[in-house]
Amino acid sequence: MLSLVGLGLWDEKDISIRGLEEVKKSDVVYAEFYTNVWHNSINNLEEMTGKKITILKRSDVESTKILGEAKTKNVCLLVSGDPLVATTHIDLILESRKQGIKTRIVHSSSIVSAVGETGLQLYKFGKTVTIPFPDKTGDVLPQSVYDSIKNNLSNGLHTLLLLDVDIENGKNLSVNDGLRILLKMDKEKLLDNKKLIVMSKTGSDEQKIFYDDIHELPKKQHELPAVIILPGKLHFQEEEFLESKE
Amino acid sequence: MLSLVGLGLWDEKDISIRGLEEVKKSDVVYAEFYTNVWHNSINNLEEMTGKKITILKRSDVESTKILGEAKTKNVCLLVSGDPLVATTHIDLILESRKQGIKTRIVHSSSIVSAVGETGLQLYKFGKTVTIPFPDKTGDVLPQSVYDSIKNNLSNGLHTLLLLDVDIENGKNLSVNDGLRILLKMDKEKLLDNKKLIVMSKTGSDEQKIFYDDIHELPKKQHELPAVIILPGKLHFQEEEFLESKE
Repeated sequence: MLSLVGLGLWDEKDISIRGLEEVKKSDVVYAEFYTNVWHNSINNLEEMTGKKITILKRSDVESTKILGEAKTKNVCLLVSGDPLVATTHIDLILESRKQGIKTRIVHSSSIVSAVGETGLQLYKFGKTVTIPFPDKTGDVLPQSVYDSIKNNLSNGLHTLLLLDVDIENGKNLSVNDGLRILLKMDKEKLLDNKKLIVMSKTGSDEQKIFYDDIHELPKKQHELPAVIILPGKLHFQEEEFLESKE
Repeated sequence: MLSLVGLGLWDEKDISIRGLEEVKKSDVVYAEFYTNVWHNSINNLEEMTGKKITILKRSDVESTKILGEAKTKNVCLLVSGDPLVATTHIDLILESRKQGIKTRIVHSSSIVSAVGETGLQLYKFGKTVTIPFPDKTGDVLPQSVYDSIKNNLSNGLHTLLLLDVDIENGKNLSVNDGLRILLKMDKEKLLDNKKLIVMSKTGSDEQKIFYDDIHELPKKQHELPAVIILPGKLHFQEEEFLESKE
């Protein structure tokens, strides 16, 4: 059996009771953080679960090793956030089904719903986009990314902008690089005079939410993990929440 | 202080360790299930947390009672799913800020990311829509709902269709009523010959995912909680996953 267990947003305390029970009854426990970087201590997690946790690289996850083991043992793969957000995990489940291996998913908190902390209404989010690392020729975003942003804006919808992960090295694009890339690709000046949101360390006591002009945001100190949100048409209550102070 | 703690998708085991700790150190523990129906036992939750939990009605949450208490005590409000998905909770946080009451959000699993269990890619979801209860004049959906579905489809995006909650009575629209309303409002025959997804009891061992023609789906047995998903343009891997068997 293969269990994919979500670790949730922040540290070892964001796993659910169900997830913790699942880890404890597993024979082998792995974790992978290359699809969604984990910024916390694996030691705390080992202490809490009483299990040795082996961190896997991309090549380990994509090899036949895990599924081979899952044929005879209870194998648990820990993932930050909620599992199945990354295509890699969908692949793993599909491959398990083909091989007749039982699977189980234990959900956890995810940035996809936690963006509610901005006060923006979740149902008003359009297509999510990822700001990719700049390629060697410059910072120009693929046209499809720009089209999605344009389409959301023209429908009054909010856009959740994820910062790309360098899968080989498990590193995120920084917030300031993301903002710079957004500005550079903005040929139609859709973002000029727009206030964007940067939300970082979500779910932790160090969470920060900045709501400011796209030219002002790079002057703040932004840590990772973080997302950028481009608001669409704001309801007055959304605006009031964004302007309110904790 | 006011803490909003998410209970997650299914039963008492879907709360996070962080959430459980928050409940245990609270002076007063409330729960409200009228914005998002909870289909499980409050007794199990009381046993696990060692706290008496009082279930609030809409009028209780909207009254000044909770915030009055939160001025001098640690008040915890339990919510199924992830908090802040409902406008009511955003209101509560905003009002707390105005009154100088400290707030805390503890996130948990939500249907918004758990739809990943269908194999559909999360970033390809467009605007979320809610299928409302039929009004007295018939089953016609507000034009805005139909427009959102049309817009998602024309952009190749998936649509998450939530079933409305009768807030006064804490009851969900049924899956079959939802499907019937969808068909009735479909003047342009966008849904004819379309395969939709019904996903129910997500996160539990009784979870069911049906992927079938909109005319065939009503013949299945659907329990609550459930969501309907209208796929947009499917990638071959998404299609393969939907057709695969557990």
